[in-house]
Amino acid sequence: MTIKVSGYAAERAKAPLTPYHFERREPRADDVLIDILYCGVCHSDLHHVNADWNTTYPVVPGHEIIGKVISVGNSVSHFKEGDYVGVGCMVDSCQHCNPCKQGLEQYCDEGMTPTYNGADRHDHMPTYGGYSDKIVVSEKFVLKIPQGLDLKSAAPLLCAGITTWSPLRHWNVKQGSRVAVVGLGGLGHMAIKLAKGLGAQVTLFTRSPSKEQDALDLGADKIILSTDAKQMAAAKGEFDLIIDTVPYEHDINPYVTTLTINGTLVLVGFLGDLQPTINSAALVLGRKTVAGSVIGGIAETQEMLDFCGKHGITADVEMINMQDIDNAFKRMLKSDVKYRFVIDMASLKKS
Amino acid sequence: MTIKVSGYAAERAKAPLTPYHFERREPRADDVLIDILYCGVCHSDLHHVNADWNTTYPVVPGHEIIGKVISVGNSVSHFKEGDYVGVGCMVDSCQHCNPCKQGLEQYCDEGMTPTYNGADRHDHMPTYGGYSDKIVVSEKFVLKIPQGLDLKSAAPLLCAGITTWSPLRHWNVKQGSRVAVVGLGGLGHMAIKLAKGLGAQVTLFTRSPSKEQDALDLGADKIILSTDAKQMAAAKGEFDLIIDTVPYEHDINPYVTTLTINGTLVLVGFLGDLQPTINSAALVLGRKTVAGSVIGGIAETQEMLDFCGKHGITADVEMINMQDIDNAFKRMLKSDVKYRFVIDMASLKKS
Repeated sequence: MTIKVSGYAAERAKAPLTPYHFERREPRADDVLIDILYCGVCHSDLHHVNADWNTTYPVVPGHEIIGKVISVGNSVSHFKEGDYVGVGCMVDSCQHCNPCKQGLEQYCDEGMTPTYNGADRHDHMPTYGGYSDKIVVSEKFVLKIPQGLDLKSAAPLLCAGITTWSPLRHWNVKQGSRVAVVGLGGLGHMAIKLAKGLGAQVTLFTRSPSKEQDALDLGADKIILSTDAKQMAAAKGEFDLIIDTVPYEHDINPYVTTLTINGTLVLVGFLGDLQPTINSAALVLGRKTVAGSVIGGIAETQEMLDFCGKHGITADVEMINMQDIDNAFKRMLKSDVKYRFVIDMASLKKS
Repeated sequence: MTIKVSGYAAERAKAPLTPYHFERREPRADDVLIDILYCGVCHSDLHHVNADWNTTYPVVPGHEIIGKVISVGNSVSHFKEGDYVGVGCMVDSCQHCNPCKQGLEQYCDEGMTPTYNGADRHDHMPTYGGYSDKIVVSEKFVLKIPQGLDLKSAAPLLCAGITTWSPLRHWNVKQGSRVAVVGLGGLGHMAIKLAKGLGAQVTLFTRSPSKEQDALDLGADKIILSTDAKQMAAAKGEFDLIIDTVPYEHDINPYVTTLTINGTLVLVGFLGDLQPTINSAALVLGRKTVAGSVIGGIAETQEMLDFCGKHGITADVEMINMQDIDNAFKRMLKSDVKYRFVIDMASLKKS
């Protein structure tokens, strides 16, 4: 039997989100049926609503999902009724290509199946996200939430957390690594916490002196005002890794200058033409690297959640009701949130 | 006593090279006095003559130097009279910064001392390069030429060789790695030979179908015509490492597309603004990397020479007399050389 679901959807590009009732597939043998408790609000949710990227409407956004297992299919072995679980940006992938075999499902050769605005690989039905009360997901793409982790503030780990964790791990950040973070939003604040958790010395690049105390409170060792030429010059050659979370066009050349020999700047927030362009001399004459990274694999996401459980790391969140989503989008655009909105799905019953 | 030297110099920007007589320092205790036998002609020699980069005139170019030791200072322990030796792009560095301590003298925090158009760190006299009959170099920057390696065609190893070897090693090219090379000139032909020597599958990207046989003769497994959209599309996601040797502005986006997940494109030939700019989506959605690299450290250069000695790898060269240098520059600009001009310094005596 299919699953009747209540949620919120944008019916067309740029439309306000309104109540939407739909059905999810009849759970298959490997599926977990999840009662959604909380869902984080990610910048990309708004991009999809606004048709900044290719969107098929109606779209039910949401890929920072925390829930409780209602029931499991016959072949499900890792989850049982009552477990607290998470679902992130992906709900499936081909499982047989080289990236999938390496646990890099996000780079699946056939394209991973996104949690919303995608199509199920088997029945080809559209996928709908976490701005809803229930979801059906193959257990391969369901994460365990470690005991003791606050469920509300764990939601953003499923996207903002793994998006910053994956490059920190891939570029081997460890005790004493010198890490800088560009931008202090949902991604940036997680990058600071996770890099700090891994033992790095962490610096925030920001244009706002007012963010210094916030950054220090999050665990950063210092901030560098990117608008201050003197501070930027003093940071020349300082960082092993820079996690650049800025989601819009910006000049990365000043940050490249602050990389050490063999250092890497990783873009995690911006998809588009790098303008102004990169001057290659800085790369060539210092063996520096500019790279990109998107979310992380499933095993790596579980690793991150377990790490957060052990170190008591979660996001700083502001709880909202589902009905407040349009206002939350507006405030998010103004960076008026510390640092992630999370929807309390209990509010859906009020619609 | 200072050393009287005959060479060729450009007396001012864009001047033809003409005979030039000058003195080199009195050899210090750690110096090796070298009788220059051969010197390769590198693109950057012409850049210096043309004042494309900052040049102090007169300039005596040349940093692909092969010679025979005439005498050594009291503290020199690794070389003796009669040894065949090489000198590359550097003749000194600070020796105490982090890059120097790691054997990365080319990235010395204080700046390495270039073989020409630099200033000695001790007496602050200008450095003059290998278009001359003798040179005085601290033994730390003198390389041993393995027995059996053809001396004439070994000269380009000191710049073109190490410039391509260093990224191949740094990015861990080994048996079965999939390597592509962009551009078939002095650097490109060495990249093919060295990558092949390391056991990689090697592809040449070129705009000229006419270069196919040449590339295969050099050891490449295949060529891809970068002007053929079908061939480029078929190569999507294929390469672990791309060595981009092109020395002028060019679009790297089509090559980035041919990188595999975690793949790296390394610029070794171009210093300037990347135009058109990079689209970051290709980096982010495939964890791809764009990097740069310049020459290589001294220990690494010796490693490369020893590898070439063991595998019989040298450059393909066309010998010229010193008096032919201006014509050689002209032909080099038209890529009319397979693949490196090398000056026979015996010809200097005819001036």
